[in-house]
Amino acid sequence: MEHNLPDTIALLTRTPAVLDALLRDLPERWTLRNEGDSTWSAFDVVGHLIHGERTDWMPRVRMILHFGEAKAFEPFDRWAQQRESQGKSLGQLLDEFARTRSESLGELRALNLRQEDFGRRGRHPALGAVTLSELLATWAAHDLTHLHQISRIMAHQYREAVGPWSKYLGVLQCAGHSS
Amino acid sequence: MEHNLPDTIALLTRTPAVLDALLRDLPERWTLRNEGDSTWSAFDVVGHLIHGERTDWMPRVRMILHFGEAKAFEPFDRWAQQRESQGKSLGQLLDEFARTRSESLGELRALNLRQEDFGRRGRHPALGAVTLSELLATWAAHDLTHLHQISRIMAHQYREAVGPWSKYLGVLQCAGHSS
Repeated sequence: MEHNLPDTIALLTRTPAVLDALLRDLPERWTLRNEGDSTWSAFDVVGHLIHGERTDWMPRVRMILHFGEAKAFEPFDRWAQQRESQGKSLGQLLDEFARTRSESLGELRALNLRQEDFGRRGRHPALGAVTLSELLATWAAHDLTHLHQISRIMAHQYREAVGPWSKYLGVLQCAGHSS
Repeated sequence: MEHNLPDTIALLTRTPAVLDALLRDLPERWTLRNEGDSTWSAFDVVGHLIHGERTDWMPRVRMILHFGEAKAFEPFDRWAQQRESQGKSLGQLLDEFARTRSESLGELRALNLRQEDFGRRGRHPALGAVTLSELLATWAAHDLTHLHQISRIMAHQYREAVGPWSKYLGVLQCAGHSS
């Protein structure tokens, strides 16, 4: 399926409410535990999503529209949330994600992008030339990659508790390719 | 982490609202498409979860409490939703899942299970002896396996649209072990 802006926005709009319904006030053993050394908890993932709103998605949209391929995007800091989430509660992070996402989407809608804009190109520091439509599709798929990751992190906490059923539970076979 | 009933109930309680926030009124290209032949759409997964509430989870809890290992569980019909979801809208299925899950949890709470109950055994038709605590942990992990699956099914719809970013998106590397 090709990228379609209304479909992308429909998905991006829902993610804060999805994570809120899943994580707010959930016992900490689901939200603060990770999958082992150098892996993330659900709390860490929400911090990562906030950092993306601030430094990645709309900033890169602006870069494409203003500079095209002339200037490469800033590399994304995948561990920034360790610093930025410090001292905050999960409830605060969920509020912050909802607010920053809503601001991003307000800005995206205000651009009134037209069909001819979607082919405009920017320059990714590692991937090279990318289009605006690829960036927008990736923003949506990135939400899904982290929903996929959170469900796996949480299921990992019951890896032993499920006993012989573990072989029937696909999420427990997932190799952690989205950490 | 060992099975803990309040943690399991906290998770099971949230799943209908999570799926509602994610899927209700979402464009059909996210909810009705699947990953190819003999795979499920998000719509199919919600039907499967309803079937589980009706025929699997609490019926198996009752089997363990009433018959122990003397009588094996009914095998689970993984394709029942094709029949049972026919003619229904996704909104109707989401309402039905919320209602059946709420009934299941009402019944579970009313059992007032005590610590000594969790080791009680039943008989799975393929896995053999299983305990009540393993069944309850599996119920929670089964919700997560299907949230994991839905995020993967949806991301698959943008597999081409993300262009060169696909290699960074873990969900697109997932081999479909939870279909």
